[in-house]
Amino acid sequence: QHFSIAAIPGDGIGPEVMKEGLKTLRKIEELHGGIRFSIDVFDWNCHYYLKHHRMMPENGLDTLRDYDVILLGAIGTPEVPDHVSVWELILPIRRTFQQYINLRPIKLLKGLESPLRYKNHSDLDFIVVRENTEGEYSNMGGRLHENTPYEMAVQNNVFTRYGTERVINYAFQLAEKRKAKRLTAATKSNGINHSMPFWDEIVKEVSRQHPSVQTDIYHIDALAAYFITRPEQLDVVVGSNLFGDILTDLGAAIVGGLGMAPSGNINPEKAFPSMFEPIHGSAPDIAGKGIANPIAQIWSIGLMMEHLGFEEMNHLVVSSIEEVLIEGTIRTPDLGGKNKTFELGDAIHKKMQEV
Amino acid sequence: QHFSIAAIPGDGIGPEVMKEGLKTLRKIEELHGGIRFSIDVFDWNCHYYLKHHRMMPENGLDTLRDYDVILLGAIGTPEVPDHVSVWELILPIRRTFQQYINLRPIKLLKGLESPLRYKNHSDLDFIVVRENTEGEYSNMGGRLHENTPYEMAVQNNVFTRYGTERVINYAFQLAEKRKAKRLTAATKSNGINHSMPFWDEIVKEVSRQHPSVQTDIYHIDALAAYFITRPEQLDVVVGSNLFGDILTDLGAAIVGGLGMAPSGNINPEKAFPSMFEPIHGSAPDIAGKGIANPIAQIWSIGLMMEHLGFEEMNHLVVSSIEEVLIEGTIRTPDLGGKNKTFELGDAIHKKMQEV
Ligand SMILES: CC(C)[C@H](C(=O)O)[C@@H](O)C(=O)O
Ligand SMILES: CC(C)[C@H](C(=O)O)[C@@H](O)C(=O)O
Repeated sequence: QHFSIAAIPGDGIGPEVMKEGLKTLRKIEELHGGIRFSIDVFDWNCHYYLKHHRMMPENGLDTLRDYDVILLGAIGTPEVPDHVSVWELILPIRRTFQQYINLRPIKLLKGLESPLRYKNHSDLDFIVVRENTEGEYSNMGGRLHENTPYEMAVQNNVFTRYGTERVINYAFQLAEKRKAKRLTAATKSNGINHSMPFWDEIVKEVSRQHPSVQTDIYHIDALAAYFITRPEQLDVVVGSNLFGDILTDLGAAIVGGLGMAPSGNINPEKAFPSMFEPIHGSAPDIAGKGIANPIAQIWSIGLMMEHLGFEEMNHLVVSSIEEVLIEGTIRTPDLGGKNKTFELGDAIHKKMQEV
Repeated sequence: QHFSIAAIPGDGIGPEVMKEGLKTLRKIEELHGGIRFSIDVFDWNCHYYLKHHRMMPENGLDTLRDYDVILLGAIGTPEVPDHVSVWELILPIRRTFQQYINLRPIKLLKGLESPLRYKNHSDLDFIVVRENTEGEYSNMGGRLHENTPYEMAVQNNVFTRYGTERVINYAFQLAEKRKAKRLTAATKSNGINHSMPFWDEIVKEVSRQHPSVQTDIYHIDALAAYFITRPEQLDVVVGSNLFGDILTDLGAAIVGGLGMAPSGNINPEKAFPSMFEPIHGSAPDIAGKGIANPIAQIWSIGLMMEHLGFEEMNHLVVSSIEEVLIEGTIRTPDLGGKNKTFELGDAIHKKMQEV
């Protein structure tokens, strides 16, 4: 089978971890005789922006449309305001291609210790389904009375029934397939009294169609605390764009740090390309040193393989990462070691050959 | 000195922990010859709502206005939608009395272990300043196309210069008085592209007037992760209404749970009464069993004493709690013990006499 891949390494440590990710693709081709990738690399990033005053060419989205999947490294530099880089690259991709599911496994890999004192591998293994196209990231709003003491900024949270139902449906379907069959929805309907009660209503409606799933709705503040105190009770967590974003960085922190956590921006209908990326950002503070942890990027390719129908390749990627972590001799600084990005990448790819 | 106190025990475990809080007040009178409290207790809660169709009498806010301070237990029962109980009681109090600072110390008390494996007391001692009157909890918004597939709910985040400046100013002034002089502001200006860039601008403006304070701005997702990975670098954290809410529940979780964390809703000008409460909610699941942890409520009275100008009384309260925790023989179930609310309360009050 042949798959076309658009790779956008991005900024900062993005290109450094993408380099390892591309090696993962080559290793998969090598091990699985029937898979071929053709990879095009695009230099759309903040550097490109500083030269061309846009994050990608005018026909950028059209160009991407023809690929089977998109791989992203990370976007952002101190010289370009974050909301520019994000709103001209990542978010248009997520929206144009109806990647309305952002799937983020929170799993403590073998060989790693959680920063949570009494939690081990079996306690930390759940998945967050994040709404990825609307909600708090609406781009709607503006300012009034600028340059006066009465200045204000308003931003609309926009929750549509269409957008909310589809993500909640997906989360319930996922929960139904899992052993624990438990769904936890994040809300804040006590403080945010228009949009979040609407969200809760839809959770309850959809839950009635899935009686085998045990459903809980927690306020985001309490739920953030539960990530620390009782993560073992979580199975599928569903949250709005913002709440899912916060919970998954928190989730990454409790399973070994931002360097560990992958993310899939998924169009379940496969009408458009899906996009796979690490949860972490471009980390300007360590960029250029070659010491970034490539695991999140490599694992994101595992997620991509699962999306393409090769679940066993995701298992291969994850178990190879775990083997290297268990051996423990090769680790980047964020994991307490002294190795370089490429050394950890090479170790994982070598392991893929062996296991 | 004489102080008038309006006590609103509320729902669920609220009245159970408030009972201990009222004992704390009596103990303070006993130990400090010069302080007298007159306490009026108000039964405004969800039970009151089910009888009267409102959370408090029509002149409720006017009644409260004449008190020096308000003490709150917790509000909420499953029978009354959260947004009703909150929007008709807690939030009108916070807003009418311009309690625009919500002050929440995150401090690991001696005698307790953090759920974070490698963090100890000196690592966990910072304070969160939360905006308490506007932002994401705007009450502005509504629905369109109800009962059609095109239904949507919109909620406005409203950030005024006035409201944002005053909380950020307060946070910088607080940071200036502390040893580390470090301020961390929570944002999400990459995704939320109107209101949060405005917030960031004001942080930067105010920061220029406080050159002795080292200022950082972090996206809320990354900051939530830092609460786990490097809380020792935090000193004063400032966040919007929602972000401050999420961060403080998370903060409570890393210093021993929601039963531990107090909160002051403060009008710094003292033009109106301030309100002190635990961060935790009414916990219907354990209500009526007499096993709730009263520490957050008792500590909130420490915060109240500090607000009234008796810092040494806050120290007395906190160190008495710590002594009891260090002894470790009397603990409620959330702290791993088998004691009742009143036993832990009594132990703390006895200790106040001794230390
Ligand atoms: C009851 C609720 C609206 C409230 C809030 O979010 O402000 C609570 O969580 C708190 O933190 O005091
Ligand atoms: C870059 C930013 C807008 C983005 C988000 O919040 O969606 C990132 O934090 C993520 O989680 O993918």
